[in-house]
Amino acid sequence: MFQGLMQHHPLMISSILEFAERWYPNVEVVSRTTEGPIHRYNYQQMGRRARCIADALAKLGIEPGDRVGTLAWNGYRHMELYFGVSGSGAVLHTVNPRLFAEQLIYVIDHAGDKVIFTDLTFVPLLEGLADQLPNIEHFVIMTDRENMPQTKLKNVLCYEELLEQGDENYQWPEFDETAASSICYTSGTTGNPKGVVYSHRSSLIHALGASVPNGLGLSGNDSILLVVPQFHVNSWGVTYAAPMNGCKLVLPGPAMDGASIHQLLDEEKCTLSLAVPTIWMMLTGFLRESGATLPHMKRVVIGGSAVPEAMIRSFEQDYDVSVIHAWGMTETSPLGTLNFLMPHLQDLDYEAQLPIKLKQGKSVFGIDIRIVDDENKVLPHDGVAFGKLQARGHWVTSGYFNDDSQDPVADDNWFDTGDVATIDHDGYMMITDRTKDVIKSGGEWISSIELENMAVGHSAIAEAAVIAIPHPKWDERPLVVAVKEKGATIEKQELLDHLATGLAKWQIPNDVVFVDELPHGATGKLNKLQLRLDFSDYQFPDA
Amino acid sequence: MFQGLMQHHPLMISSILEFAERWYPNVEVVSRTTEGPIHRYNYQQMGRRARCIADALAKLGIEPGDRVGTLAWNGYRHMELYFGVSGSGAVLHTVNPRLFAEQLIYVIDHAGDKVIFTDLTFVPLLEGLADQLPNIEHFVIMTDRENMPQTKLKNVLCYEELLEQGDENYQWPEFDETAASSICYTSGTTGNPKGVVYSHRSSLIHALGASVPNGLGLSGNDSILLVVPQFHVNSWGVTYAAPMNGCKLVLPGPAMDGASIHQLLDEEKCTLSLAVPTIWMMLTGFLRESGATLPHMKRVVIGGSAVPEAMIRSFEQDYDVSVIHAWGMTETSPLGTLNFLMPHLQDLDYEAQLPIKLKQGKSVFGIDIRIVDDENKVLPHDGVAFGKLQARGHWVTSGYFNDDSQDPVADDNWFDTGDVATIDHDGYMMITDRTKDVIKSGGEWISSIELENMAVGHSAIAEAAVIAIPHPKWDERPLVVAVKEKGATIEKQELLDHLATGLAKWQIPNDVVFVDELPHGATGKLNKLQLRLDFSDYQFPDA
Repeated sequence: MFQGLMQHHPLMISSILEFAERWYPNVEVVSRTTEGPIHRYNYQQMGRRARCIADALAKLGIEPGDRVGTLAWNGYRHMELYFGVSGSGAVLHTVNPRLFAEQLIYVIDHAGDKVIFTDLTFVPLLEGLADQLPNIEHFVIMTDRENMPQTKLKNVLCYEELLEQGDENYQWPEFDETAASSICYTSGTTGNPKGVVYSHRSSLIHALGASVPNGLGLSGNDSILLVVPQFHVNSWGVTYAAPMNGCKLVLPGPAMDGASIHQLLDEEKCTLSLAVPTIWMMLTGFLRESGATLPHMKRVVIGGSAVPEAMIRSFEQDYDVSVIHAWGMTETSPLGTLNFLMPHLQDLDYEAQLPIKLKQGKSVFGIDIRIVDDENKVLPHDGVAFGKLQARGHWVTSGYFNDDSQDPVADDNWFDTGDVATIDHDGYMMITDRTKDVIKSGGEWISSIELENMAVGHSAIAEAAVIAIPHPKWDERPLVVAVKEKGATIEKQELLDHLATGLAKWQIPNDVVFVDELPHGATGKLNKLQLRLDFSDYQFPDA
Repeated sequence: MFQGLMQHHPLMISSILEFAERWYPNVEVVSRTTEGPIHRYNYQQMGRRARCIADALAKLGIEPGDRVGTLAWNGYRHMELYFGVSGSGAVLHTVNPRLFAEQLIYVIDHAGDKVIFTDLTFVPLLEGLADQLPNIEHFVIMTDRENMPQTKLKNVLCYEELLEQGDENYQWPEFDETAASSICYTSGTTGNPKGVVYSHRSSLIHALGASVPNGLGLSGNDSILLVVPQFHVNSWGVTYAAPMNGCKLVLPGPAMDGASIHQLLDEEKCTLSLAVPTIWMMLTGFLRESGATLPHMKRVVIGGSAVPEAMIRSFEQDYDVSVIHAWGMTETSPLGTLNFLMPHLQDLDYEAQLPIKLKQGKSVFGIDIRIVDDENKVLPHDGVAFGKLQARGHWVTSGYFNDDSQDPVADDNWFDTGDVATIDHDGYMMITDRTKDVIKSGGEWISSIELENMAVGHSAIAEAAVIAIPHPKWDERPLVVAVKEKGATIEKQELLDHLATGLAKWQIPNDVVFVDELPHGATGKLNKLQLRLDFSDYQFPDA
């Protein structure tokens, strides 16, 4: 092969912080600390301290490839670990502290963590688990000597004392760009969590791909409030993309309530923030009650679950903040699609734009998506056909850590997301269901989410879930399980008639069951797994 | 090494057009043709035709690594060759048709081109050179059968007929991402042109790095008039970055005059355009005479030589178009620095911003720069110290094609640009001179450009050049060679006194010589090489 004559530098995560330190040394990083006060410093100081922690870890015996766990909120010390651990060649395992105890033990053991860094918040949690974590050589509490707690944990170190052992003249090593940089476990509702292992190359290309204007559009003009946790897919990759673009970074620590979030947005003049819908419900609630506004904020990125129409309206019409609806998952680093309006759609009036804004958006360069039917036949971009959503690209997983039970990318690297979606002729993807929730009736698919949305559109219905029930003739048929609004009366047939107005005949559910409440998970999400168990003996009247 | 578990896809140039074809199929590509009419199609059609030309080239016997030359303006067929040639694994050599005949023969021979694609414009030029290009197997004229000229060239093919031989179902191959994709020769004023060989990897990372908001900030909202020629460093990389971001692309063909450029900007509602200052002089001249305006245009990227203050004022104040001052070179793909104002500078009033806007700007992520003294000692970012400007990064050359006469990156990949620059404490770089033009006086450097700017600041001076003259005590001392304004009278001492007002004593030139005119090159640029030859026998009065 005739080779190019360009310099080869491996794509290293350490190069991001080096760039910020060199070209944006005075740009601020502001953190609300677990200890209480607001902490301020800049990328120059972050760079120096990340080198110190990298060197201190080496002195502690951490070698390239070793896993280092964190149980931590978003904060400057967590940022230092992102660069200090990965930059040294070790692998950062950002543990989600909201996992159940047995899952925490599982992921820490499965990842093979040698050291755990923890915020003060999670010391009691770790004290309860420590006996079942025999391989942890050190617990490092992310605070200074003054704030060190009394603890039953053994092998405890103080972060600031450890950092002082490190040399600020540490030199970042260069190594193979496909080396592992960090691990994030998916928190599936079934089975054990699965480890997704990012590489330096995938993280860097993802950060570049996420930075472009069709993506997050990050620049030196941005002050970013990073609400999405650093234990959720590296804060959607912004942990890397913010210093890469010289953005001011504001890290909220443990305080996620509306007043605390608003205080930071206001005082730090944040132009952009990213989080799941739940956070924004709390913020808009606070804004309505307090009469506060968002004068500095220009864009809000919302992902993790579908964005309700009322939330888009509220941000855009009440507060003049553009909503960027995004979709992705742990296995896609996470950015898959982002919603920005193409020029010909910007000419539409607002009400005509809304149905488009409710979609999860378009692929950014670096990742490709497609929808396929049960036989993996590719479906058209017509906005009607819906099928299994698959993704493929530079930052999509090729498999799970120490898990040979399945090959998730058997078909030419197309990763099955577990979502069901449509793609319209402008390329906008919309999630219509989860693969496991869709009802497969006589070869046709029926979206449970679409039926649920129509059901709660009836004024007498407070909440509804639609699940598949086995059917002798059609394989599966839909059942509606609904909760009535307090004081409302409604009969089965009335709800079925209401649904019939917007559906083809074969899509109309076979039955309705009214219940007092539906099962929900810890995060408030409808637990369809439990619901299916509850209705495992149910049979349709006509069966 | 503990490897990441992410998919590995080589960074392929073909993937850019595949992305545009798949996700922006209907976005337009508009070309002013050499034949005359405006041609319109979209990325879907470009993708289909690029696959056809790739397949047709294979059938013609072109193999991976073979070089394919072009002599062509910016147009849709040139775009098809960018993707068709590089995408197939062959190497595109975009020849600058403005080179002198002997340079054209040299570069075509040195690159080893097997086929030359040419616009109608350059057929007569090639007819005159063909006898000296014995290795060219085919000349392909970029037009259809109807417009094919009578020509003395042998082995002539018609582009459209060739394309018809290709299969639109051709599959883009995947291969090593460090393979060569294209070659561009530098047009140095001394010695033979030198070939810079880009790779798929370097071109793709450059296109991503150029797309971010701190760079060109390209998005689906942009309609780009690409004036900078495709034979100048791949149109500054926008040939790749435009389809990567779903931008509408407008290609001006051979018509560079103000009226033609304005027509496209206006009719195609261009939001962004890129070119050298000379083009913008012609456009602003046209605007002043015609009273036309630029209602759609938001940004203009100007590079290639320093942007005059009056040009920045005119675009920003008269036409409400933001100027992005950029610096780069063939060896840097080309983007090195771009000028955007950091937030704390946006608070300054316009007159205070102007001196910053005159600088060439800040590094984007992916390329690093530094300034060093004669001993390669790194100089501070204080806006005062000036030294040799060096660059290093993912899209910086590691050497020249078939040229072992020198290693341009001997010092740890730091490429010597041949420019002399300062870098201020905010990271803004300003070119102050060329290394070969700076005057080295007793260990101190004196900028020839600074002295020239001061000299023409005197009302009696029309043009001035400052060159180094050997000096027995100080090694070199500055000599001013000046042309008086028509009808003006001024004596040597008066000009020296004028210069003394703004200079340290050791910087004041030793002598002034008045001449009737200064030597200029074909593009109107001052030819200091000739001037130094003209003054090779000159001695200072005090020497």
